[in-house]
Amino acid sequence: MSQNAEGRAVAELAELIGGRAVVDAGAFVRRVSSIEAAGEGDLAFVEDEKLFESARSCGASCLIVPEGAAVKLEGFGGAVIESPRPKLAFALAAEVLYARGARAASVHPTASVGEGASIGEGTQVHANCVIGRNVSVGRDCVLHPNVVLYDGVSLGDRVVLHAGVVVGADGFGYVRDADGLYHKFPQVGTVEIEDDVEVGANTCIDRGALGTTRVGKGSKIDNLVQVGHNVEIGERVVIAAQTGISGSTVIESDAVIGGQVGFGDHARVQSGAVIGSQAGVLPGKIVRPGVWWGTPIQPLEEYKRLNALWGRLPRMREEIQELKRQLKELTERLDEKP
Amino acid sequence: MSQNAEGRAVAELAELIGGRAVVDAGAFVRRVSSIEAAGEGDLAFVEDEKLFESARSCGASCLIVPEGAAVKLEGFGGAVIESPRPKLAFALAAEVLYARGARAASVHPTASVGEGASIGEGTQVHANCVIGRNVSVGRDCVLHPNVVLYDGVSLGDRVVLHAGVVVGADGFGYVRDADGLYHKFPQVGTVEIEDDVEVGANTCIDRGALGTTRVGKGSKIDNLVQVGHNVEIGERVVIAAQTGISGSTVIESDAVIGGQVGFGDHARVQSGAVIGSQAGVLPGKIVRPGVWWGTPIQPLEEYKRLNALWGRLPRMREEIQELKRQLKELTERLDEKP
Amino acid sequence: MSQNAEGRAVAELAELIGGRAVVDAGAFVRRVSSIEAAGEGDLAFVEDEKLFESARSCGASCLIVPEGAAVKLEGFGGAVIESPRPKLAFALAAEVLYARGARAASVHPTASVGEGASIGEGTQVHANCVIGRNVSVGRDCVLHPNVVLYDGVSLGDRVVLHAGVVVGADGFGYVRDADGLYHKFPQVGTVEIEDDVEVGANTCIDRGALGTTRVGKGSKIDNLVQVGHNVEIGERVVIAAQTGISGSTVIESDAVIGGQVGFGDHARVQSGAVIGSQAGVLPGKIVRPGVWWGTPIQPLEEYKRLNALWGRLPRMREEIQELKRQLKELTERLDEKP
Repeated sequence: MSQNAEGRAVAELAELIGGRAVVDAGAFVRRVSSIEAAGEGDLAFVEDEKLFESARSCGASCLIVPEGAAVKLEGFGGAVIESPRPKLAFALAAEVLYARGARAASVHPTASVGEGASIGEGTQVHANCVIGRNVSVGRDCVLHPNVVLYDGVSLGDRVVLHAGVVVGADGFGYVRDADGLYHKFPQVGTVEIEDDVEVGANTCIDRGALGTTRVGKGSKIDNLVQVGHNVEIGERVVIAAQTGISGSTVIESDAVIGGQVGFGDHARVQSGAVIGSQAGVLPGKIVRPGVWWGTPIQPLEEYKRLNALWGRLPRMREEIQELKRQLKELTERLDEKP
Repeated sequence: MSQNAEGRAVAELAELIGGRAVVDAGAFVRRVSSIEAAGEGDLAFVEDEKLFESARSCGASCLIVPEGAAVKLEGFGGAVIESPRPKLAFALAAEVLYARGARAASVHPTASVGEGASIGEGTQVHANCVIGRNVSVGRDCVLHPNVVLYDGVSLGDRVVLHAGVVVGADGFGYVRDADGLYHKFPQVGTVEIEDDVEVGANTCIDRGALGTTRVGKGSKIDNLVQVGHNVEIGERVVIAAQTGISGSTVIESDAVIGGQVGFGDHARVQSGAVIGSQAGVLPGKIVRPGVWWGTPIQPLEEYKRLNALWGRLPRMREEIQELKRQLKELTERLDEKP
Repeated sequence: MSQNAEGRAVAELAELIGGRAVVDAGAFVRRVSSIEAAGEGDLAFVEDEKLFESARSCGASCLIVPEGAAVKLEGFGGAVIESPRPKLAFALAAEVLYARGARAASVHPTASVGEGASIGEGTQVHANCVIGRNVSVGRDCVLHPNVVLYDGVSLGDRVVLHAGVVVGADGFGYVRDADGLYHKFPQVGTVEIEDDVEVGANTCIDRGALGTTRVGKGSKIDNLVQVGHNVEIGERVVIAAQTGISGSTVIESDAVIGGQVGFGDHARVQSGAVIGSQAGVLPGKIVRPGVWWGTPIQPLEEYKRLNALWGRLPRMREEIQELKRQLKELTERLDEKP
């Protein structure tokens, strides 16, 4: 995000972010900041009541606080916006304060753009990006440095690709012949990334083998993620760092995937499923809505129950030994009875 | 893969891929496609009998089918090739249709080539590749954009490195002094990648500390894999995405390694071993032929058996409680006996 | 490391690395090597007594050996340095032999340097590096090819970043609105990397959301590691490949972290903790000094004990069945008693 020079009046900003300026609506803010570091021109927010005390001595020009909380901030000298969801309002305020104005596409002179490629208005292509032939990039995208788009892939509007992202490399598919040699299964499909997707640094999204690898509108993918060939990711899906998704797996809309998760091929994650970090999903598995954990994944509650028992294994083992001892004693006593 | 303009006659293609043109040997194909998307000029394949029905209405100019299956495709209007292994024949056909012709090496003007480096005939070096000093690259290789080859590494012929691959960075080795400071153990060895190796996007293959890191002929490595210093990978080894191999580990020829597997240092995977995704191999471990799973790895059958018991832990615990209860009751009864 | 032409006399080198030249102090060495490959001009070392035999026939110009061991190397024809810690002495010798001389900053012509960026004396910026606006890079750093430093980040002196490292990309933080859309939480903080840090190829270190992501002096990070926003890494921390650290986690000085470890957010690893490869640390967890293993992490000894029991589960299950059988028999016998 890069900051606009002018800033915004608190009253105007409050309206744009669904809040209400309750103190000093004429103040100006230009940047966002944490409570601790905030100074003149800064906007900060506080949501947790435990932090109200440090908020009172905050140097920000404006604070966003929960509804009805302004009165609890006596001593704070700046403007105050009340909002039902201060953190969301703060994020929306940053969108306003750091918005890029409309402009022509800017392609850094060290970037390479292949024949037949099209780049939409307002899109920024940073240094050393390589855009293959017949690639289509929408409007207002940002391609950070060293992004590589292989031939033929397409991006929607407002897509952000961080440095080192690779879109459209060949998927990993081979067929073995009678001599044990691997022949590449053709990887001649493509990748389509829809509007408002953001992809983290050095993440790889492979092209479809014959069909299309797809990332749906508004999905957010972290750094160093692997998306295999023919994977379909729905809309508003969140995937944390270093997760790997094997070929043809489907992640339906609104799923949430932790970091370092591994997916076998042809799995399906249903809408509303949440998968914890480091989990492992077997090939072909259907993951229903709910919270999942572990390898192979289980419902979180089940995982917790089993994991607790895992810690009790030594005790269980002792109990078995004790039972054996008692049983032996009992048998001996019985033998002695008439 | 980029497509040749001219295409091939079905009869000629059938011969090249070990198949037999049984219908309309004069038809021409130029591209490969899935059954669903195929149209004029496309070659598709069907192997699974369940898909024969959709194959009948396929728009491809030619279908590759199992031996004796042509007669089951009544209604299909194109040419037919029969093959004992349609998927393999399809992959071989793609090698023919998308073959690059013989030509001079092409080095993109934005690529940097160090002193003393040599690049073989027919090799393509794409945009922003950086080839260090005294690097040797064989014939007919493809270095996709942003590949980095550190000084002195060598590649055989027909090696394909996808975007962002780094070959020859320093291995991760330090020696700690009495003050707790880390000094780099010298990383002055090299990397040798043999013929017909393919390496996925953003994968890293470190140089040997004093010796050589090696990847044998025909091995295939997926995206975001880490290959540590002095690792030796044999021939025709397959390694899926995000796997990490610590220093001096040996993976013998024809091993198959899943995704997100972790190897400690100085382990050895014997020829014919198959290691499932997310498995963990302890340092120094010798992995014999067979299928392995879990952390630390166990034979798959053993893993399955234990994993099933893991799910039965709650039941085992109940059984122990029930045994305790019964034993107590029995003891009381015995106490009451004369 | 690149080698200096001239080399060093053994006596001079011995003094610099805290050793003692005991044989032929006038010999010259120019390079380091393994015992097996060493020849004229090479320095090698031997620490393990088992390797003394192969050291005797080594072709090196000089060997570093443990104190008092020179006499055990009869037959070896080169110079000998004795040292209390031969491997450390060898590493220090490499620092001397491969030292870069003082010189002006060198920025490769294909690198891009943003406005307001400063680059210290003696720093090398290799091909296709992209240095953002207002970035500060210290003295004697090495930025290998294709490194990306986003706007405003700072590096201390003698920092080494391997190819494809990305410093300062946006952290992964979003706030969801009532329609389910994700809005980026502002990622307007920065990254500070202190002196003598080395970072492996394709590793990503995200900028702080509002504050700073920090990597302390002398820490060493391997390839393909993910360091999230606002993470704080202390001094002399070692982190192996493919580990992922979620936002705001703190790794205190002198911790050692294996490969493929995953950290939830807001965890804290205390100084002196050692975490084994593939371990998983839950969000908010405090990891005390000691050796830790598994997911969720446990003390290594505990992990080993539980893991051994895990293998005994089938036996435990049989024992329970046997107890049930015996108890039933006993009950029947008791029933029959008068």
